[in-house]
Amino acid sequence: MTTSWGKRADMLVHEEEPFNAEPTSAALAASYLTPTDTFYSRNHGPIPTLDRGTWRLDVDGLVDIRLRLSLAELQDRFEEHVVTATVQCAGNRRAGLIAVRDIPGEDPWQDGATSTAVWAGIRLADVLAEAGVTQAGGEADETHVAFQAPDVSQLARPSQAYGGSIPLAKATRPEVLLAWSMNGEALTPVHGAPLRVVVPGWIGARSVKWLERIIVRHGPSDNYFQSVAYRLLPPDADPDTAGPGNGLSLGPIALNSAILSPADDSTVSAGALAVSGYAFAGDGRRVARVDVSPDGGHTWVQADLGPDRGPWAWRLWRAQVHLAAGDALLVAQAWDGTAAAQPSEAEHLWNPKGYVNNACPRARVHAVHR
Amino acid sequence: MTTSWGKRADMLVHEEEPFNAEPTSAALAASYLTPTDTFYSRNHGPIPTLDRGTWRLDVDGLVDIRLRLSLAELQDRFEEHVVTATVQCAGNRRAGLIAVRDIPGEDPWQDGATSTAVWAGIRLADVLAEAGVTQAGGEADETHVAFQAPDVSQLARPSQAYGGSIPLAKATRPEVLLAWSMNGEALTPVHGAPLRVVVPGWIGARSVKWLERIIVRHGPSDNYFQSVAYRLLPPDADPDTAGPGNGLSLGPIALNSAILSPADDSTVSAGALAVSGYAFAGDGRRVARVDVSPDGGHTWVQADLGPDRGPWAWRLWRAQVHLAAGDALLVAQAWDGTAAAQPSEAEHLWNPKGYVNNACPRARVHAVHR
Repeated sequence: MTTSWGKRADMLVHEEEPFNAEPTSAALAASYLTPTDTFYSRNHGPIPTLDRGTWRLDVDGLVDIRLRLSLAELQDRFEEHVVTATVQCAGNRRAGLIAVRDIPGEDPWQDGATSTAVWAGIRLADVLAEAGVTQAGGEADETHVAFQAPDVSQLARPSQAYGGSIPLAKATRPEVLLAWSMNGEALTPVHGAPLRVVVPGWIGARSVKWLERIIVRHGPSDNYFQSVAYRLLPPDADPDTAGPGNGLSLGPIALNSAILSPADDSTVSAGALAVSGYAFAGDGRRVARVDVSPDGGHTWVQADLGPDRGPWAWRLWRAQVHLAAGDALLVAQAWDGTAAAQPSEAEHLWNPKGYVNNACPRARVHAVHR
Repeated sequence: MTTSWGKRADMLVHEEEPFNAEPTSAALAASYLTPTDTFYSRNHGPIPTLDRGTWRLDVDGLVDIRLRLSLAELQDRFEEHVVTATVQCAGNRRAGLIAVRDIPGEDPWQDGATSTAVWAGIRLADVLAEAGVTQAGGEADETHVAFQAPDVSQLARPSQAYGGSIPLAKATRPEVLLAWSMNGEALTPVHGAPLRVVVPGWIGARSVKWLERIIVRHGPSDNYFQSVAYRLLPPDADPDTAGPGNGLSLGPIALNSAILSPADDSTVSAGALAVSGYAFAGDGRRVARVDVSPDGGHTWVQADLGPDRGPWAWRLWRAQVHLAAGDALLVAQAWDGTAAAQPSEAEHLWNPKGYVNNACPRARVHAVHR
């Protein structure tokens, strides 16, 4: 194991400890599925290396039957399912908010705190059913399924092992997996071996890695990373004094997109220019359309959308625009199936912890005759 | 029956035939539940007056058991359920798009093509189950449940009775009703007596009135009002030549809000000013926050949200701002539970049929010392 955790050399490493790194836009754009050595990595404490043989998963709390299962037992007892899902950090594109106003103490993620993989494992719903927990109907918003991991974070107040929860209504949906494999290979330590949660359509913070315990409980987890962090505070709140329950607890992901090529502040040839990127609707919605403007939003063309791998995964897109020589401002805007569009400006979206920057992405380019 | 269909005298009537009318902002703001005489009315053809005694509901198509049921049979056989739901026309707030560029042939709805009522009736899911139709799991997006009504619309090409469909996954959700009552009273003819569909969180066009037939089928309805109308066309499309399947079929509602008081272009007293309105997240999402700016978006205060009647109904909101004497531009912006915010400007949202204007609402006021 190297200090780079199996990641390619050109990752943008925000922190070595805890390890926080994102791929470059070019690396992310190179394929629909993000190779594991390119997949972003967001961590809150040291990466644990767990022994697959002695590891056990505990399921307890408001269950009829407590479970303690080995990886082999999980693999034997439950049917394997495969889901293509984009994982996205709530802090993705924070750099665009920092450009509005500084956000001290938070990593300046660019467009790469999101990646897409094929995940294989078992349905959380099936394990919950074995413990006697099913969605009885209705909204099931009050019962939560909490996840506990062993990685102790010094960033939490007080320091504590990482955790979080999702409502039972989401936990019992077929897309939510306990995954042991990513892109056809066993999970690597940095991605949560031997078993992690994958909660498609929700912020990455709920896809808890190195899962050791599932607790069914009343109400959301009181883990620091759910009750205090990963909350959207109003602009005038002080994040150093904000307490549990302040602001809006993030969960389902909001519609977002990024321009992956050309790079911001790059020089391009005048004439036809290909503009490409990703769009992700989140929350089980679908990307319906992506528009691209070559002139700061005055005129727009519709981008071609790449393969559709379902509502849990991003769409790559590509448009051709024509540029005269000179400076130009490229803008993209994604639309989801409700015809909701991304908000235009990051300025109105600024918040003290820098979450959910889903403003229309922009790239300044300098077009020259070559 | 008067020509005003039981509506109050100050309704803004866009058309007498078909009858299309919305309440004033003041009338809409007066109560959380919209009185039936104030509730907006959107129609595509003549209002039918059906005989409750001889009326029957047919259920057929891809069913195990065909049903033909009287109103009394529906009321006897199935459990009554009650849902508080906001109904909203996809054309609500179209006037804001017409201000950007004209939209010929479509009514200039202001902020009142939406209203909220308590609906009582039976679950569509229960009737479908009686016909042997259940959601087998998975997404059930390919099977649709279509609704047919007797009101023939001359606006359709060719002229045809009104209809539309929703996916089985939505049709089997507990909030979707076949309703016979609105705000505690039997449906009036203009609101769909004796029985109508109520599809909470989806565009009003799917809450088909005067329901006579339910057809379970493969794929969406090919009724004009689903295959051609109620689609978000790209800005450069020609609505007169757009054919079936062009653009984006509207269904779930996008996050929206309106300022109901003060009125646009009104004179107010300098000093403290109460600003109020509604916000509706749509699609089962919740309104998480509403911000109000007294200065065109430079500074913002958080509005107080009124009672929460669940994810299918709007939130009323109120904020206090302070105005110096002079002109001011009030702006509101709603946020949903994913931290998605309304897009700022209507200009980017313009589309040829004028649907889904969910830009941040604005009101110009002239503050004077009194």
